[in-house]
Amino acid sequence: QDRFEAVRANKLFETFVIIVIVFSALLVGAKTYDIPAPFGTITLLLDWFISFFFLTEIAIRFMAEKHKKHFFKSFWNWFDSLIVVVSLIPADNAELAVVGRLVRVFRVLRMVSFIPELRILLVSLVKALPQLGYVMLLMFIIFYIYAAIGSTLFEAINPVLWGDISISLLTLFRVMTFEDWTDVMYETMEVYPLSWAFYLSFIFFTAFAFLNMVIGIVVNVMEQ
Amino acid sequence: QDRFEAVRANKLFETFVIIVIVFSALLVGAKTYDIPAPFGTITLLLDWFISFFFLTEIAIRFMAEKHKKHFFKSFWNWFDSLIVVVSLIPADNAELAVVGRLVRVFRVLRMVSFIPELRILLVSLVKALPQLGYVMLLMFIIFYIYAAIGSTLFEAINPVLWGDISISLLTLFRVMTFEDWTDVMYETMEVYPLSWAFYLSFIFFTAFAFLNMVIGIVVNVMEQ
Amino acid sequence: QDRFEAVRANKLFETFVIIVIVFSALLVGAKTYDIPAPFGTITLLLDWFISFFFLTEIAIRFMAEKHKKHFFKSFWNWFDSLIVVVSLIPADNAELAVVGRLVRVFRVLRMVSFIPELRILLVSLVKALPQLGYVMLLMFIIFYIYAAIGSTLFEAINPVLWGDISISLLTLFRVMTFEDWTDVMYETMEVYPLSWAFYLSFIFFTAFAFLNMVIGIVVNVMEQ
Amino acid sequence: QDRFEAVRANKLFETFVIIVIVFSALLVGAKTYDIPAPFGTITLLLDWFISFFFLTEIAIRFMAEKHKKHFFKSFWNWFDSLIVVVSLIPADNAELAVVGRLVRVFRVLRMVSFIPELRILLVSLVKALPQLGYVMLLMFIIFYIYAAIGSTLFEAINPVLWGDISISLLTLFRVMTFEDWTDVMYETMEVYPLSWAFYLSFIFFTAFAFLNMVIGIVVNVMEQ
Ligand code: NA
Ligand code: NA
Repeated sequence: QDRFEAVRANKLFETFVIIVIVFSALLVGAKTYDIPAPFGTITLLLDWFISFFFLTEIAIRFMAEKHKKHFFKSFWNWFDSLIVVVSLIPADNAELAVVGRLVRVFRVLRMVSFIPELRILLVSLVKALPQLGYVMLLMFIIFYIYAAIGSTLFEAINPVLWGDISISLLTLFRVMTFEDWTDVMYETMEVYPLSWAFYLSFIFFTAFAFLNMVIGIVVNVMEQ
Repeated sequence: QDRFEAVRANKLFETFVIIVIVFSALLVGAKTYDIPAPFGTITLLLDWFISFFFLTEIAIRFMAEKHKKHFFKSFWNWFDSLIVVVSLIPADNAELAVVGRLVRVFRVLRMVSFIPELRILLVSLVKALPQLGYVMLLMFIIFYIYAAIGSTLFEAINPVLWGDISISLLTLFRVMTFEDWTDVMYETMEVYPLSWAFYLSFIFFTAFAFLNMVIGIVVNVMEQ
Repeated sequence: QDRFEAVRANKLFETFVIIVIVFSALLVGAKTYDIPAPFGTITLLLDWFISFFFLTEIAIRFMAEKHKKHFFKSFWNWFDSLIVVVSLIPADNAELAVVGRLVRVFRVLRMVSFIPELRILLVSLVKALPQLGYVMLLMFIIFYIYAAIGSTLFEAINPVLWGDISISLLTLFRVMTFEDWTDVMYETMEVYPLSWAFYLSFIFFTAFAFLNMVIGIVVNVMEQ
Repeated sequence: QDRFEAVRANKLFETFVIIVIVFSALLVGAKTYDIPAPFGTITLLLDWFISFFFLTEIAIRFMAEKHKKHFFKSFWNWFDSLIVVVSLIPADNAELAVVGRLVRVFRVLRMVSFIPELRILLVSLVKALPQLGYVMLLMFIIFYIYAAIGSTLFEAINPVLWGDISISLLTLFRVMTFEDWTDVMYETMEVYPLSWAFYLSFIFFTAFAFLNMVIGIVVNVMEQ
């Protein structure tokens, strides 16, 4: 166990792990290009090497732990193990080819779990979420009401945008990002000339709620 | 009266009310999908059940109040009563079908009145509005002046966008959200090559006023 | 002089002035609609009444001043006088019709000079500008350099967007507002495949400078 | 050396340098217009004059330095020297014409190095970058993972947008700026109806990381 701990704490080992993580990320990127056949076999081999290396690395980290139970108490150990285990799905299987490739993409996330600063950042981001809880709920209620009104009134005008409540929610999100929102509005204004009030009030409500959310976070952060 | 108060304070009752509110929201959403005829009758029945339930719930809250006058002093009691009474409009009436459906949508707002945190949030949002009063007025004056200039100069170029002052206000709001604003500008620049100054100055003024508004809110919030 | 001061300080007089200002603003808006001929004469008469009323009001304010010199020391007196004098240009003159109408629009600005809160707001907005001076200059230098590069490299591709440095500045402002900026980029990427770096670096620089500007204002405001 | 220092410290000299810098910037702008042939020769002469003047000015600054070594310790002296030396590339050479013109554009940057306030601003901007380091890295990891997924799943749908990982990164940046992002989404939703989740989650993650970045800077600035 001490020998494993010595390996884990070794600076050279750490550097090597990070090189393999970066390399696996580059491999993921390289595979999105059209690779000539011979290189295909090489990437497959590299892929197996990376899988094997990651497995070994986690095994070492597990062995290095004094109290084996502690290993499973860390969220990041679970996170790494899951990523490594899942990416053992063979990438050369015809049926699972796409799934296998997608799963390998998540290996890039090991970058986050390996660099302490990124881990801290992610944890602080996630911790900031709950305080947004009620503003998010309020925003969702605003969205839901407008989507219900929209799909009731405008479905006959354009079912692609307002066919049912879920598609209407997507359309409203589009309006919120100002993405060609006037096209959506001009279309319904031909039937309901006053429907600009629908869009403008929606934009004001969501912008106001969003502003409040941002200010809420700023104030919370300041207080700490 | 004490028995009613006991009911109102009952945790189980509260949970049940919230379930019915969520359920009524889901029903509103479900009705935006094409529902086969038999289910139509079921939704109608469910609708009546919800109306009846909400009516009962408010009655209980009214009965539970020691001093009946206090009941009418609360904004939220008025709010709930209005929503419930209005949604008694029959949804199966052919003429009022759309109105009836729209009115039922507002039942979702009972979520806001029932969850204290959302109520507080909404109240604080509304309270933040007055301090925006003068910036909003200034912004409206900017909009109004630009809209008057726009509809005077550009009406002949594109009456759809600049026909009168109200449609010009809408066009300027579009420009403010940067939604295909260059299309609007390039069109008028063909006749008035210097009209870019109109749009750019408008964008600068409104952006500056908006920025000032945001900063004003942040500072106000901080001071508390 | 005391009698004039009594008039000026009169609440009724103040209210009446504000009503006439609002009314003149509404008249400006009304004229953007197609008005039947008979009403045209009425608006003309109203217009003369407003001009006359504003002239009288300023005369009263001038008379009410103890030391006539003080009257000309106030920026807002100059501002009001200028607006009133300029809007004496006849609106029924065929040649100056458009100019006359445009000039009348600026009467709406009397709203700003009459409401003290708006005056304070505007003054504080203008006072915030100098502290932005150097960031604005830096931003302009960034714009200028990119516009020079853009019109040197991309003129042959699309002279409408990159013909000379001033049109390039406009195009870059468009890119900065994210308004169909990828259309501009995809076009030049066909000739210079690496020109995405031009756009992305420009967006990063300006976004960063803009962010810094906003933070600068926030910090300045906080310190007071 | 003292005489050189006297020249350098001379207010008139400083003013003249700044006039030449502004003039060289105007010349850069003027060259983007179609200039009749005779003026072409004049601009060429002016160009040589500016090059010579800048060279002289730096020589004077070098001479004025007591300890010659100190001259090379200043980043801005290196910066100015580089700009001046590089812009000695002849602008009339046919082959290097475009390069020569582009290089002259960077002379405008001497404005930054000459005005102390801009220098301070730029230094503070650059110093703010490292503290963004880890958020930028996290953002890049998010981008990279989404680009890898996007080019794996959507390449067959639209190779122009999702052909490989670098073009996918560009497409995702476009989505992040909300530039016609629904066109990109609607296209992939025809094959993968659930792909809206891909775009929405991406927008949420990046917006959240961006928000955090902004707040991080604000807080850092406040603490100083
Ligand atoms: Na946009
Ligand atoms: Na757009």
